[in-house]
Amino acid sequence: MKKLINKKEDIVNEMILGMIKAFPNSIENVKDLPIIIRKDKKIEKVALISGGGSGHEPAHGGFVGYGMLDAAVAGEVFTSPSADKVYEAIKAVDSGKGVVLIIKNYSGDIMNFEMAAEMAEIEGIKVGKVIVDDDIAVENSTYTVGRRGIAGTIFVHKILGAAAEKGYSLEELEKLGNKVVENIKTMGMSLKSCTVFTTGKNSFDLPEDEVEIGLGIHGEPGTHREKFKDANTHVDYLLEKILLESKIGKEKVAVLINGLGETTLIELFIINNRVADILKEKNITIEKTLVGNYMTSLDMGGFSITILKLDDEIEELLKYKSDTIALKTF
Amino acid sequence: MKKLINKKEDIVNEMILGMIKAFPNSIENVKDLPIIIRKDKKIEKVALISGGGSGHEPAHGGFVGYGMLDAAVAGEVFTSPSADKVYEAIKAVDSGKGVVLIIKNYSGDIMNFEMAAEMAEIEGIKVGKVIVDDDIAVENSTYTVGRRGIAGTIFVHKILGAAAEKGYSLEELEKLGNKVVENIKTMGMSLKSCTVFTTGKNSFDLPEDEVEIGLGIHGEPGTHREKFKDANTHVDYLLEKILLESKIGKEKVAVLINGLGETTLIELFIINNRVADILKEKNITIEKTLVGNYMTSLDMGGFSITILKLDDEIEELLKYKSDTIALKTF
Repeated sequence: MKKLINKKEDIVNEMILGMIKAFPNSIENVKDLPIIIRKDKKIEKVALISGGGSGHEPAHGGFVGYGMLDAAVAGEVFTSPSADKVYEAIKAVDSGKGVVLIIKNYSGDIMNFEMAAEMAEIEGIKVGKVIVDDDIAVENSTYTVGRRGIAGTIFVHKILGAAAEKGYSLEELEKLGNKVVENIKTMGMSLKSCTVFTTGKNSFDLPEDEVEIGLGIHGEPGTHREKFKDANTHVDYLLEKILLESKIGKEKVAVLINGLGETTLIELFIINNRVADILKEKNITIEKTLVGNYMTSLDMGGFSITILKLDDEIEELLKYKSDTIALKTF
Repeated sequence: MKKLINKKEDIVNEMILGMIKAFPNSIENVKDLPIIIRKDKKIEKVALISGGGSGHEPAHGGFVGYGMLDAAVAGEVFTSPSADKVYEAIKAVDSGKGVVLIIKNYSGDIMNFEMAAEMAEIEGIKVGKVIVDDDIAVENSTYTVGRRGIAGTIFVHKILGAAAEKGYSLEELEKLGNKVVENIKTMGMSLKSCTVFTTGKNSFDLPEDEVEIGLGIHGEPGTHREKFKDANTHVDYLLEKILLESKIGKEKVAVLINGLGETTLIELFIINNRVADILKEKNITIEKTLVGNYMTSLDMGGFSITILKLDDEIEELLKYKSDTIALKTF
């Protein structure tokens, strides 16, 4: 395996240090742990924490900042962070108004984040949670009971982050979070496995002319494999599934075309071209589009499409300003 | 080749349309050509245009916007745009104060951009140019007389973009541009060739355990190949070359850790961790760091390091606000 790392046991730590050295005025870590927090933390609002295994960058550390997360806890590559670390993050960012955990639906994350919540509650910190399960491809899967949480999680960071800045209470954030999750539907496909940095192995193997439809962001199986065709054919299939599941009429939506790692912006914009055309045909109004690598799977080839159905509240929060370190131009 | 495209002849056009449909309030194209311009164009300032072959996204279309470029002209993948197209871009963005072309040093780009400048000058439009040759790896190469222009070009977009907004004249922008180019030094390496979308072939072949040091962004040969070692060893080598060439004392600098395509943010931040440590050791102050995919080579694996030496003028311009479509979070 040729990957630009040093010792395998230092991957996450060196990444976290490299992030902090790139944005020393915006972020710092907690007790030398792989926990990124805002430097301007402890303001009087409910704090938001997300996290999970590493390998999905810029998620989640990149989304720490004004209007999004207060902290992100990074586990080893594709491995949930321990409850202890999540607990340290909770203590570091609570301002007395409580903390909401945004958790992608994987059994390991659920267990560790919930255990951390219990530890914090014993200390008198109020903790709420929002579980994201936006992947419509399959019910139950490797590591997951129910549906998986994937790229749509970014919208939860954004909407709840805005609401927290605007002074929503913990209970209001949980309620809003559940509504937002209900409105987010994602499905993706892969053209190439990722190389898992810690093992040096592919997360799965795929014949040269086949794609895996509906897989998860750790390479968990999807619904099926099929012959590779072309961008539009695959987009049409995925988008039809998503729209069916979203029960969309003529609502407004936000769209996320998410790259899994090695897929180029050329391809992601070609995909967006098709998605935009189909939504226009169906008289669905796109209020916001994001195109790029938001929730990756190391160097995997492929993408996902997320549709977020908007109502007035969600639309207003989506337009609220945010300033995070991810994907900065200047 | 499994790439998310449709017909090969539609790659660039569908990408441009996909960009415009993602950011319909910010950008548009000119006469259905692959030319991205600001929607708020024609304000009273010198206009800036860059461009070149496609395959380097988000460069250059992604950097069209306030405080950076007024237009970007896209050729086919790894192919210079024709003089006609550059000429159309010049006509579209000139406000009467003239246009400065920011050209990466490749023979094809130089020829076509200069021809376009001549065509525009016949029409009475003043055209200046700044040629970027930041790649210190080799003198002369495939497609290039002299040194190549690579990722450091982004700093030229930024600094000149700010200066243009502040009212610099065409002559002042050319002079500033030449100073900035003189202060930018870049060198990179590759771990994996890219797949050229139009041919379906690798741009070069590299044994599983070797890397190519100092290669160009179209896969042009670098200085040599060597066995892959680890991130820090390769970073140390590249950075030493760059610092030597920069003749840096204890100045302030800006740093760009640029991914070539499939290289993950984990790796880029690990690289930045080392770069920041070495610069600190040498008492060089980092005023700004960028880490991510700014100037890619399709799905190539690898990275480059750019150091921009700052003086007071450049530092002030670097901090000027900009708002482009590339790498948006929200």
